[in-house]
Amino acid sequence: MKQASTSTSQLGVMNFLNEVSFQYPAAVSFASGRPREEFFDVAGWIESIARFCEHDASTRHEDAASSLRRLAQYGPTNGVINALVAEQIGCDEGVVCSPERLIVTTGCQEAIALSLQALCADRGDTVLALNPTYIGVTGAAIGAGIELQPLDSDPGASLPALLARKTGALREQGKRARAFYVIPEFDNPTGTVITLDDRRAILEFCASNEIAILEDNTYRMFRFEGDARPTLAELDEYGCVVYLHTYSKTLCPAVRVGCAVVPKTLFGDAAASRNLLASMSENKSFLTVNTSQFNQALVGGVLLAENGSLQRLTRPATGFYRANRDTLVECLETHFGSESEGVSWNRPEGGFFLTLELPFEFAAPEMMECASEYGAIVMPMSFFSLDGSYRNRVRFAYSNLSGDEIRRGIERFAAYARAKIAGAAPCIA
Amino acid sequence: MKQASTSTSQLGVMNFLNEVSFQYPAAVSFASGRPREEFFDVAGWIESIARFCEHDASTRHEDAASSLRRLAQYGPTNGVINALVAEQIGCDEGVVCSPERLIVTTGCQEAIALSLQALCADRGDTVLALNPTYIGVTGAAIGAGIELQPLDSDPGASLPALLARKTGALREQGKRARAFYVIPEFDNPTGTVITLDDRRAILEFCASNEIAILEDNTYRMFRFEGDARPTLAELDEYGCVVYLHTYSKTLCPAVRVGCAVVPKTLFGDAAASRNLLASMSENKSFLTVNTSQFNQALVGGVLLAENGSLQRLTRPATGFYRANRDTLVECLETHFGSESEGVSWNRPEGGFFLTLELPFEFAAPEMMECASEYGAIVMPMSFFSLDGSYRNRVRFAYSNLSGDEIRRGIERFAAYARAKIAGAAPCIA
Repeated sequence: MKQASTSTSQLGVMNFLNEVSFQYPAAVSFASGRPREEFFDVAGWIESIARFCEHDASTRHEDAASSLRRLAQYGPTNGVINALVAEQIGCDEGVVCSPERLIVTTGCQEAIALSLQALCADRGDTVLALNPTYIGVTGAAIGAGIELQPLDSDPGASLPALLARKTGALREQGKRARAFYVIPEFDNPTGTVITLDDRRAILEFCASNEIAILEDNTYRMFRFEGDARPTLAELDEYGCVVYLHTYSKTLCPAVRVGCAVVPKTLFGDAAASRNLLASMSENKSFLTVNTSQFNQALVGGVLLAENGSLQRLTRPATGFYRANRDTLVECLETHFGSESEGVSWNRPEGGFFLTLELPFEFAAPEMMECASEYGAIVMPMSFFSLDGSYRNRVRFAYSNLSGDEIRRGIERFAAYARAKIAGAAPCIA
Repeated sequence: MKQASTSTSQLGVMNFLNEVSFQYPAAVSFASGRPREEFFDVAGWIESIARFCEHDASTRHEDAASSLRRLAQYGPTNGVINALVAEQIGCDEGVVCSPERLIVTTGCQEAIALSLQALCADRGDTVLALNPTYIGVTGAAIGAGIELQPLDSDPGASLPALLARKTGALREQGKRARAFYVIPEFDNPTGTVITLDDRRAILEFCASNEIAILEDNTYRMFRFEGDARPTLAELDEYGCVVYLHTYSKTLCPAVRVGCAVVPKTLFGDAAASRNLLASMSENKSFLTVNTSQFNQALVGGVLLAENGSLQRLTRPATGFYRANRDTLVECLETHFGSESEGVSWNRPEGGFFLTLELPFEFAAPEMMECASEYGAIVMPMSFFSLDGSYRNRVRFAYSNLSGDEIRRGIERFAAYARAKIAGAAPCIA
């Protein structure tokens, strides 16, 4: 944790976000990518703890009360619902794995931290990430004293070409790219999807350079239209991919249950893969001991009730997020439809986030200004940037708002943007 | 996490322990300091989530269902039951603190890891610990790449003298003692209690040398007889003590809820204390985001039902542990009562652990031999040693056994020990 005190620009973003939301409670907030609460069946999910216990008891030929008491104890570091989780990611994500390759973690965030720590154990070991990228990987790397290097921002270059360029530059500095963190489906913060061709090329490049791919698949269940691309883990013939998964969005954040799956062989080496898992497991035992078995039982009980797939359960929320995406895009077309405005955006096929480009800079002062004077909170994309770039872009999270809130929020944001474009926006000292 | 791959002797102990228990399922195991399951009221505790929600809803003037849904979301990094936890440790432990100084963690283990990371951020920053000490602090230090130094094993020297000697030696090496980890009441692994005089002297020494004391108070509620000494936190006039607390033993391990309390001023500096808490909070947000609010609500609901004190709830378990301590000591007197045996032990006033000294070496091979040939699993004290010492001592955990199991286990262990003393114990290649 040696760099923790030297770099705070990324670390402060989370707190800043929370503060700005509290500071302007009347503002419409597009800041936070939270799942929609009306789809939480919390009481039903808590009851599913008992369902898991009955299942567990029947496999052990004991009564459910004994099973519940045993669950309340310390348990295996790597988890107790591994088989059910493996079944679900096999069924829903095409990621076929044996439960022994899976470690149940205290949310996906712990899975990221453990993966980075285990893969980047030597001096000069570096993690690559798209630029901009998820704050959680930046923070986990800083916290562990591991260097995180962004891929260059070169719209003309392909992803594999950017990877090759960065890897070569690191090598010249005596450093080594050991991992590449990526959210291939409905990226946080950009909402984009990596093409099938790029996925294959990334895998080939990473395999031949022995760079592990940390595939974070948090948003993949929320596809609005079109066909899902296979995950990198499914395409992986080389033993490149550490697959990261979470129930924070499909169920709810308070379950704090996620997982990491190590490849069958790490770059063809079965012992290296076992060592990777063992290292993650050891580090976990000294961070969180084991993931709460109550929370594991809750998730396990839901998976049992749903016969191993979360597609039925996530369908209503996916419909809601799609309607919100539609409302958001419609509002943007209404307010910024004219090309002369110089405002453009993507149309995400799924997930929680949309990227918008502005003809003016939108950083922390503009965020505060827009929140305080116009009542809309929008995230500057530069907050997620690893080199301070993307100062003209913003992230809209549309997952936890009603249609009316989106309409009101975009009307306010548009008023701000038009005033800014006209050079008439008030200044904050 | 730079040293993780270089030191595995301590890291392997946990796994070794689990394996040996699985390997000899018929053996009586004194290995693991687990709370007794028959005192878990799991169904009742899960229902207490609803109690916390009603309380939370009434303070916010909303309905309990809304409160439950909000709890299911992401929440404040530092927790939502801080006021209830502060009330309990004030009531039961004499540790008076404002909720703002408290961070709710995913078990005490996370509190240890976060404290170490925040206090030892610079090169040469070192943690001191008694020798032997709890494996969890050793592992957390190794995992974070922080040097852990044992106090010397000098039975003639006082604790403050040992602290002074080690601190001076480190200074000569250009290093700096930044923290001293200690379990003052019913220590794991030794079961001992630090005297009031030593507590005061430790505080004075640490204050004048700006060494933070990490006071781990996991076992203090389980006192069998005599008066409790005040905690270091209660005695602290200097702003030395970071107080670590857990509900894993008073309730059950699966709650995975603990906390750390920073001092009001760190060595007299209020800003330094705020910075310490902020650093721990930032690191937590990138390790576990926030402690599961379901688990927090469960603990909060129990604290509400118990009016802020866990004394009533822990009394039956304390009686059980006391009876077990009595049975264990009686059995030891029966089997090793003659002084000529050269076997001696302490009589812990509380907690889960007893130390026994043998007239022969008892390390990993002897542990396996005793488990496989005699059917009793006992922990070599050298597993907890930071310098390989204490090879003639063992730790007995008596918390999770019936009286009959203790009698049977000690009979077996005594048979092994007598054979060993007589030079007749079988050898394992």
